Amino acid sequence: MSTTASWSDTIVALATPTGIGAIGVIRISGTRAIDIINQLFPSKDLHQQPSHSIHVGYLKEVGQELDEVVISLYKNPRSYTGEDVVEIGCHGSPFVQQQVIEACIRQGARLAKPGEYTQRAFLNGKLDLTQAEAVADVIASNTAASQRTALHNMRGGFSQVLKQLREDLIQFSALIELELDFSQEDVEFADRTKFNQLVQGATDVTAELLQSFKLGNVIKHGVSVAIIGRPNAGKSTLLNGLLNENRAIVSDIAGTTRDTVEEIINIEGIQFRLIDTAGIREHSTDTIELIGMEKTRQKIQQSDQVLYLFDVNTETPATLAAATDLVAAANPNVLLVGNKTDLLGANEAAAKFAATPGIIYIAAKSNQHIDQLKQNLVSKVVQGNINTENTIITNTRHYQALQQVAVSLADIQAGLHNHTPGDLLALDIRRCLHYISEITGDISNEDVLDYIFSKFCIGK
Amino acid sequence: MSTTASWSDTIVALATPTGIGAIGVIRISGTRAIDIINQLFPSKDLHQQPSHSIHVGYLKEVGQELDEVVISLYKNPRSYTGEDVVEIGCHGSPFVQQQVIEACIRQGARLAKPGEYTQRAFLNGKLDLTQAEAVADVIASNTAASQRTALHNMRGGFSQVLKQLREDLIQFSALIELELDFSQEDVEFADRTKFNQLVQGATDVTAELLQSFKLGNVIKHGVSVAIIGRPNAGKSTLLNGLLNENRAIVSDIAGTTRDTVEEIINIEGIQFRLIDTAGIREHSTDTIELIGMEKTRQKIQQSDQVLYLFDVNTETPATLAAATDLVAAANPNVLLVGNKTDLLGANEAAAKFAATPGIIYIAAKSNQHIDQLKQNLVSKVVQGNINTENTIITNTRHYQALQQVAVSLADIQAGLHNHTPGDLLALDIRRCLHYISEITGDISNEDVLDYIFSKFCIGK
Repeated sequence: MSTTASWSDTIVALATPTGIGAIGVIRISGTRAIDIINQLFPSKDLHQQPSHSIHVGYLKEVGQELDEVVISLYKNPRSYTGEDVVEIGCHGSPFVQQQVIEACIRQGARLAKPGEYTQRAFLNGKLDLTQAEAVADVIASNTAASQRTALHNMRGGFSQVLKQLREDLIQFSALIELELDFSQEDVEFADRTKFNQLVQGATDVTAELLQSFKLGNVIKHGVSVAIIGRPNAGKSTLLNGLLNENRAIVSDIAGTTRDTVEEIINIEGIQFRLIDTAGIREHSTDTIELIGMEKTRQKIQQSDQVLYLFDVNTETPATLAAATDLVAAANPNVLLVGNKTDLLGANEAAAKFAATPGIIYIAAKSNQHIDQLKQNLVSKVVQGNINTENTIITNTRHYQALQQVAVSLADIQAGLHNHTPGDLLALDIRRCLHYISEITGDISNEDVLDYIFSKFCIGK
Repeated sequence: MSTTASWSDTIVALATPTGIGAIGVIRISGTRAIDIINQLFPSKDLHQQPSHSIHVGYLKEVGQELDEVVISLYKNPRSYTGEDVVEIGCHGSPFVQQQVIEACIRQGARLAKPGEYTQRAFLNGKLDLTQAEAVADVIASNTAASQRTALHNMRGGFSQVLKQLREDLIQFSALIELELDFSQEDVEFADRTKFNQLVQGATDVTAELLQSFKLGNVIKHGVSVAIIGRPNAGKSTLLNGLLNENRAIVSDIAGTTRDTVEEIINIEGIQFRLIDTAGIREHSTDTIELIGMEKTRQKIQQSDQVLYLFDVNTETPATLAAATDLVAAANPNVLLVGNKTDLLGANEAAAKFAATPGIIYIAAKSNQHIDQLKQNLVSKVVQGNINTENTIITNTRHYQALQQVAVSLADIQAGLHNHTPGDLLALDIRRCLHYISEITGDISNEDVLDYIFSKFCIGK
């Protein structure tokens, strides 16, 4: 297992979100954590206090009061990181918090890197790597589905599946290697039929995990939906209808929505990020409008789903066909939505655009058929129900490693089928075990760890 | 002392800022706080645990895991509110936090009103009213000056001053009333000369406190500065120069800055809120621009300080005079700043506008003389140095009550001078004591308390 060279020093960071609140919590971890706070908290010697105890008093530096604080003491190894940890609950002023953090740094702590607390917890064996990664997922969770999936993995749900896979393969491997020792005698200690079943089982589990990734991705990252359309098609009004509040500025002036506005709604436990964009206009002399249009093109390409909104009154079948061709060239996942049916009439609109199938007709201003549109968005990304009791892969790193596991398993299966010699089979098994160990972090290197933890927030 | 009818029930709220972070803290206070968490935290009976202890485990509701949490236990009366308090440290996902709060509500807590924890602390005698108000000031503090002033008052600095005033007056009052009992005998128990000194001392202290309010206001609320000028005068560039970063969108198109942008800088411990506004233009056909202009007029009136920025190259002495007259009519605190001296030259510009005194010349684009401008802004609002060791009044409620104290003291002094009968003097002294007690909350009514605490953040 790798270690970060500097992980014996003492780190400090704000653990709560920045901004004004009732309180903020600053976390200090490392061998000097208690010494450092003893310098700033004169009323008690924390070394003499038991772990998991709370102490109220003033934090002072050179006689100058910093704040009245609540100290929570966690003594090594009974802490999140496994090191001595002191948490300072101070008043929820970003300025005060900054003063406290700077005082800790002056006393010898250094500012923590993103995810460094969890990295230390991993390096101290408090969590395996999938659990550490699930901590970040719990923090990022924003729907019931993502919360439960992340908690399942933080408790070690995915680790358990991997552990079982690993144990089966190790047992298999041991038998194969034993067989090698007796290779002259042409004995098959390892029952090949049982082996086949075992490898098939592992292949099935791996395939299921891999398959869960599509759903896992939707659960974890949500779905980005670019709402596009010509000026005055009613994009902002639709966005407001979906949100049931007035976030975007709606105006009668064509081209009002200059910036892309991101708003988030949850439909059936799935998060949709709605991106309102500047209108598509063939020619524009307004530079700001042009910036908006270039952004629109980028958004179309980057989105999971495009929602092309048009005014059923002013759009013609020909202009609709031209526009959808243009959009579909950038992103094929287009949902066509005809708006303002309260003017033309829904049946008349359907008749007018009969040549184009799959259009959803709405009247955004009067909130008509918005629910139907929401249902359509969900069915575009989720097939069937979401069962968060199963392990669901939400992490690209896990997915990529599992793909390698699947390849190795296929090689093993082919080897068994072709009566490949045991020593070659053993190599494939070791390769398979290697990728599983990479997922759990039993095998890891510093670059991978740094990459993983750099995506955490500071303070975790 | 008044009480809120419902303050025996149990309240819950998020105590940390909303948003994603490593952790968030949810605070529960009231007679049922421990019962409620016992329902959700199956691993331990918190009633059996000591105060100021920490417990790690899973929060569960109907078998469904909500989060892995850290419970901090504070038993009545050893808590912030004086009631039983349980703090739940959970993962910093707003979604998870919402789930935990909702679970607490289902178990019988109700959502806390803003400031309700501190209100309970006040009602339970943990703080007087000036200290409670200082808690909000500590949270809102954003500069060294505001932090120290607020901490000074939270520790009871202002309370001490008031207590001394009150004790002196009570002693005086007691002697006067004693005198009344012997009024037939024409005895003066109370030494009038000593009284005069005492009242003069109280008057001096009160006057000093009242005088500190102007500085207190600047320390607490900062100074709002509306940056105005014609399109292309360089307002956004100046704003960026003051901020040293690119917050506002800068563009070459006249009238780009459609919304007012508020940015904050600290100069010498004082906070300045810089408001960039849409340009002033005589006639505009663009509706958005017109909205911007109306906002600009409002901002000029509402700001503490107006900074009129002009382009020394395109402005003429005549147009400058006209524009400044227009601005000064709305707000007399105008600082004139001539920009783009890198084109015309600073000396040439000064010669061109020699008729108008007090102009500061800068070149925002190349950051020239920005420091000089900052110094000028500070000297507009602060005379001399700030001594935060003194009690500084930062609260309008205190100021208004102190004004009444001053009036009563003046009446007492006049009474002493005119040999007013002791019973009338005693009335004035009681009036004076009444206003002092209002400040500390020894006398209060529910409406006043509700008003004071409604301005706190939720969770404090």
